[in-house]
Amino acid sequence: MAHQFFSSGTVCTPAGFQACGVKAGLKQNQQPDLALLYSEVPAVAAAAFTTNLFAAAPVIWDRGIISAGQPVRAVVVNSGNANACTGEAGLAAAEAMARQVADELDLRTREVLVSSTGRIGVQMPMDCLKAGISQAARALSSEGGEAAAEAIITTDTRAKHCACQLHLAGKRISIGGMTKGAGMIAPRMRLCLPPQATMLAYITTDARIEREALAACLGSSLDQSFNRIIVDGDTSTNDTVIALANGLAGNPVIRVGSPEAQIFQASFAEVLSYLAKEMVLDGEGVTHFVELNISGTANDSDARQIAEAIARSPLCKTAWFGHDPNWGRILAAAGYSGVVFEPAEVDLDYQGLPIVRNGQGTDTPEEKQSAALREREIRIDLRVGSGEGKFTIWTCDLSYDYVKINADYHT
Amino acid sequence: MAHQFFSSGTVCTPAGFQACGVKAGLKQNQQPDLALLYSEVPAVAAAAFTTNLFAAAPVIWDRGIISAGQPVRAVVVNSGNANACTGEAGLAAAEAMARQVADELDLRTREVLVSSTGRIGVQMPMDCLKAGISQAARALSSEGGEAAAEAIITTDTRAKHCACQLHLAGKRISIGGMTKGAGMIAPRMRLCLPPQATMLAYITTDARIEREALAACLGSSLDQSFNRIIVDGDTSTNDTVIALANGLAGNPVIRVGSPEAQIFQASFAEVLSYLAKEMVLDGEGVTHFVELNISGTANDSDARQIAEAIARSPLCKTAWFGHDPNWGRILAAAGYSGVVFEPAEVDLDYQGLPIVRNGQGTDTPEEKQSAALREREIRIDLRVGSGEGKFTIWTCDLSYDYVKINADYHT
Repeated sequence: MAHQFFSSGTVCTPAGFQACGVKAGLKQNQQPDLALLYSEVPAVAAAAFTTNLFAAAPVIWDRGIISAGQPVRAVVVNSGNANACTGEAGLAAAEAMARQVADELDLRTREVLVSSTGRIGVQMPMDCLKAGISQAARALSSEGGEAAAEAIITTDTRAKHCACQLHLAGKRISIGGMTKGAGMIAPRMRLCLPPQATMLAYITTDARIEREALAACLGSSLDQSFNRIIVDGDTSTNDTVIALANGLAGNPVIRVGSPEAQIFQASFAEVLSYLAKEMVLDGEGVTHFVELNISGTANDSDARQIAEAIARSPLCKTAWFGHDPNWGRILAAAGYSGVVFEPAEVDLDYQGLPIVRNGQGTDTPEEKQSAALREREIRIDLRVGSGEGKFTIWTCDLSYDYVKINADYHT
Repeated sequence: MAHQFFSSGTVCTPAGFQACGVKAGLKQNQQPDLALLYSEVPAVAAAAFTTNLFAAAPVIWDRGIISAGQPVRAVVVNSGNANACTGEAGLAAAEAMARQVADELDLRTREVLVSSTGRIGVQMPMDCLKAGISQAARALSSEGGEAAAEAIITTDTRAKHCACQLHLAGKRISIGGMTKGAGMIAPRMRLCLPPQATMLAYITTDARIEREALAACLGSSLDQSFNRIIVDGDTSTNDTVIALANGLAGNPVIRVGSPEAQIFQASFAEVLSYLAKEMVLDGEGVTHFVELNISGTANDSDARQIAEAIARSPLCKTAWFGHDPNWGRILAAAGYSGVVFEPAEVDLDYQGLPIVRNGQGTDTPEEKQSAALREREIRIDLRVGSGEGKFTIWTCDLSYDYVKINADYHT
């Protein structure tokens, strides 16, 4: 089957979706900070949210709608304020945002999802938001995908979006997506549970698909995408992925477990995977993208545990920043991960170069090791035995700029 | 009872201990890198080592001796090379160091403990070490405690040592100690289990004390000192605390569970606690010492889990560096720690100032909050409910200098 990927695609690539991004005045830097995404017809929705106990107010609002299985028409997203730890007033603010969008677009309040990202613990500036939402409702357009992607970012350096197209039963189906990072990134989302600086991602498609099939697609794509990335290791109060399918492609309905669902799933997963990787590449202060492949454990969960210890280790992350081949830090992190293995059976490769064999350094010259670590994208393979378990994490280095960005947040 | 504390005290304050620090040439910066500690008479010994799977060669050597309950006469410590992930050659090097010390000082090889700290995965330069040990054996002196404390440091900015004195049954007993950090610091040591950049600490005393009583003292002091500190969250392959008691004070033997053991324990714990705090204050790039007091959990272990999530959070640590009162980051870290509590019952104080009440920000002006965070030592209290559980962790901020030091290690 034909399948095409477009890095220039957006949430408006699928038929019947409109979007925009406007300046509501929530961000001190006067950048666009309010995005609106609209489907011309009701869309089935699936979503996953943060597992953090402090679920933000918009997350609580969205969970109610998603749990009820209701169709969705619009999503309003603000950056600059997370509306988290804001109590009853925060919940009222989230609902007021949904209500105003509904009023402006002639929808029902519970057809509108809400997302927020930014500072925690500050009440929402409702006057700014009110004016912003009015403006956004008039700015919707099928050309507005890029503007929406711009408006949801915080410390990101660029908008992140893409789309792909596939053919099913003679119909062309499009899937579009946008996401933002760039700090407090270690998403551990569960389907329809609460989100945190959150990563936000929005996936649109014009496919006709059962809600259960869309949720299954999202569930099985998360562990291969957003749930396998770690920027700084902090899991946000607002992490959210929302998928909307409006059916305008006119294909026969994609049902759970069908061959069509598998085909759709492959393209859907590619969009999520692309956006997740983009998020790491644009993580706060990131100079290197690191793919950590752990193998040889008794099971995948042990491999994940080792991968997470390394991806969270400040010593490993600063060594990557400095192109320092100091492999002892990687072995040490694996050694305190809590997973038991035989140190004398450990092998480590940087970019395919043998660095450690049987727990000891090889004679690969240090200059070659360091050169391998100068690539912008680094592949690190760690085998800790002969078990069948494996897991891959996408992570990054820890740079001066990460400290700079986060020691003076207040945006 | 009289109890005196001396920040100028050293491992040579107790009677019958000699020490020195010399330049063996392991460090590129030409600073002292070999310390020798010697007891004029056999000393009972207790020790705790890292729980990292990659236990360094000297740790494996020391465990054998400590497990056998044998008396100890000397400890040789080198900085500049960790002798970890060095295989059979590393084990042979550790034993050769012990043997040479024994030969020079007319001891048995198994009366000599060995510690190493520095880079992982590099074989020990035996020629340098041999010459260094010869030199050290001739340099021993009861005035050498400070020089020894200088020689064991790596990225530390200063030597860390102290002593205290107490009276028991008419005899004056001294306890001295020295330690080094300053990165890869999140010690999780168990009594006589293996160590990792390691923190090293050496405690000497002239008390007459049963080995079991000394081990009990060490065990119960660890959780109130070294095992409650987190600098960067990386647990080393070489972490070691060794306590030696040579009995020269002439007091009636201190037995396990006796009132005398309790009195001794109080002073012993003070030395460990002081050294642990000094280690955090001198951690890599540290500009703020943070005492995190967590309370209100169902049990102490839950409180520890929350404290560790906050102490390891790069976002909390960079906010402390920037005096940013961004309390949402602390709540978010607690929220993803895995401990379940009611967000609406959470209270947070900075230096006694109310910052969060019932999960929401107070009206304490932001300038006052930020001012509280400008103190070099910051106290943060987080209550998450009404349970009896509590735990305190000593931690620090994450600064540019931490990144600088660790992106270019190679010492």
